[in-house]
Amino acid sequence: MKNLKGRCIFAQSGGPTAVINASLAGGILQALDESNITGVLCAEHGIKGVLNENFYDMKKENIEELQALKFTPAMAFGSVRYKLKNFETDDTDYRKILEVFKKYDVRYFFYNGGNDSMDTCDKISAYMQKVGYEVNVIGIPKTIDNDLAETDHCPGYGSAAKYIATSITELSLDARIYGDPIVIIAEIMGRNAGWLAASAALSDECDLVYLPETPFSKEKFISDVKTVLDKKNYCIVAVSEGIKYINGKYVGEDESNTDVFGHTKLGGVCGALKSEIISQTGAKCKAIEFNILQRCAAHCASSTDIGEAYNAGKYAVKAAINGETDKMIAFKRIDDYSIDYVPVPLSKVANAEKSVPLNWINDTKNGMKQEFIDYARPLILGETQLEYENGLPKFAKLKKIPFKL
Amino acid sequence: MKNLKGRCIFAQSGGPTAVINASLAGGILQALDESNITGVLCAEHGIKGVLNENFYDMKKENIEELQALKFTPAMAFGSVRYKLKNFETDDTDYRKILEVFKKYDVRYFFYNGGNDSMDTCDKISAYMQKVGYEVNVIGIPKTIDNDLAETDHCPGYGSAAKYIATSITELSLDARIYGDPIVIIAEIMGRNAGWLAASAALSDECDLVYLPETPFSKEKFISDVKTVLDKKNYCIVAVSEGIKYINGKYVGEDESNTDVFGHTKLGGVCGALKSEIISQTGAKCKAIEFNILQRCAAHCASSTDIGEAYNAGKYAVKAAINGETDKMIAFKRIDDYSIDYVPVPLSKVANAEKSVPLNWINDTKNGMKQEFIDYARPLILGETQLEYENGLPKFAKLKKIPFKL
Repeated sequence: MKNLKGRCIFAQSGGPTAVINASLAGGILQALDESNITGVLCAEHGIKGVLNENFYDMKKENIEELQALKFTPAMAFGSVRYKLKNFETDDTDYRKILEVFKKYDVRYFFYNGGNDSMDTCDKISAYMQKVGYEVNVIGIPKTIDNDLAETDHCPGYGSAAKYIATSITELSLDARIYGDPIVIIAEIMGRNAGWLAASAALSDECDLVYLPETPFSKEKFISDVKTVLDKKNYCIVAVSEGIKYINGKYVGEDESNTDVFGHTKLGGVCGALKSEIISQTGAKCKAIEFNILQRCAAHCASSTDIGEAYNAGKYAVKAAINGETDKMIAFKRIDDYSIDYVPVPLSKVANAEKSVPLNWINDTKNGMKQEFIDYARPLILGETQLEYENGLPKFAKLKKIPFKL
Repeated sequence: MKNLKGRCIFAQSGGPTAVINASLAGGILQALDESNITGVLCAEHGIKGVLNENFYDMKKENIEELQALKFTPAMAFGSVRYKLKNFETDDTDYRKILEVFKKYDVRYFFYNGGNDSMDTCDKISAYMQKVGYEVNVIGIPKTIDNDLAETDHCPGYGSAAKYIATSITELSLDARIYGDPIVIIAEIMGRNAGWLAASAALSDECDLVYLPETPFSKEKFISDVKTVLDKKNYCIVAVSEGIKYINGKYVGEDESNTDVFGHTKLGGVCGALKSEIISQTGAKCKAIEFNILQRCAAHCASSTDIGEAYNAGKYAVKAAINGETDKMIAFKRIDDYSIDYVPVPLSKVANAEKSVPLNWINDTKNGMKQEFIDYARPLILGETQLEYENGLPKFAKLKKIPFKL
């Protein structure tokens, strides 16, 4: 274990969540407290900011605003989708990163993101080891998709799940006021893994859930909806944007959903299913896309998620100070319910993807078993302590003063 | 002023809001306290429930659940869209209502809704006066659209406005993380009046607002967006679903937005504008419909709105007990800021519609002046005191025991 002394860099990457800034807050505030960390830099737009030497100086920020970051959605210093090449084939970026690390005396590098970001992290770590530059590299997990391997769950998921289940409950009360047969279809993010759509089942109001983990059949879907309508006269459906037919084709790309030029229409899954419902059941139907609201609704964040995201940042710094490198901070669930923050090898996380276990999906493939509910419930507990000003959330306002050597 | 003794009926009508049940709670709890009110009935599905004698007995409900109604969205006893004919041409419904009022000894009738509902209320009152049946009829206002005449504002609007402005703020933070040019278009309810779209301007993050009150030009819209993009590299736009071209045609019904059969596509306004943005600015664009989320998001309700909605119900009962009839409880704004609850003649409210004053819209017709902000800001202040259970809002669970004579 190396006790390194020098500056640290934080950077964020991939899609935003309601709590990724909470991880940043936890990390920065911990780093500012560490005597071995001589400067705390945030890179603009992830690894691109490192390559371009766009750094902000966290010592110049007000502590109150850094604390407010804990409740601020999106990514305070921007994001990037940039995949580093393998350094064996092209080491241009790596040589630049090494040059920057040397120039700024960077001994700690924290990268906050999903599996692509963990891949970036892993490659940088491997390169630095190869060339013998001492830097501790730690990944901080985040993704509303909850699909990272080696961790019980991912920061960001609980808040998105809370927003989804809350909105499903509210939509259900709204939908049934007229007493006429009505179907609500909520389209939920998650191209390959159904964790987010599954979270709709945390609401007692949710009748049917369809995940990408099992093949979708339009006939069975209509039959499922009719069964619910016969019983209740209304039906609340959650579908993942990534549901596919048995032939592997996305439902949102249904050939019957093309325009005059043969292009797939933008309506997506819920638009396509809405037409089916109307023509085949006679019920009214409202198709609602939660869209990016589900990943940025900090006003509806889970305090459990906020706290865990914050801790992920904090423990990343502690682990690095203790000499860990080439690791991601994973969540280990203890009993019912607490979390241990455990460093796991980045290589095990990079580019892997964790789906919803098939035995958590019910036998009729249209809902979730109690095992899933027991897994997900603790993640949505507690409400944010977000401050308000003039009736609206008061989010962090950072000074963003460029770092000067 | 007649001091009547007998039962009362509450009924709700039109579209739901996050706080119409707060008015019901205020009314029921006040009515249960009044010695002149011998029974408190709620009709199922508005006036249809009166015609069909579908009544629930509020004396059988737990007080705690009636209090929880204050924070519960949608309409606890359902709604209806049913326009009574003029009784001069067809008095069938009116004779039935009279029969029911006599049978149940109904001396107080409270109808909670928008301008159509105030029309229903007004007609029933006129008929009862004509036939000499003594009943005090009071309308309780509600509508997210905020378009009722004779009142400073409408219960339901403040909560929808708070949800809209909150979501706009969160979307803006989310949109700009990659640093690439991006436009967010939020489509907001309001077919004829732009109050809801205007509320987006309560967020400092909102760049452009388009209301149905002024004609929409696609060319000017693109030019407005380009100007903002040049300055900031991102642009947050709020459009009312009811924006129209100078020829009176809805933008959402644009002929370029029709399917192979010539039917107008369901994509609506923001879908049509998104295509324009992408082809004419080269920026990325996300089109987001707030859909019915904006009217049922009780988790984001304004405590000012909840309190005023509750008071509207309470003062309706007090006014009726004091002998008022054929009135709606209007809101009168006192200084900066309190509300007087004033009965105004139903006939002045029925079927009237209040638009956003043109002099509250900026000179370039793409934003709101400070006058609007000063008007709307107090309505969104304060957060709901909603209780949570298992991580989700705990809404009222009523027993709904049918009323028996």
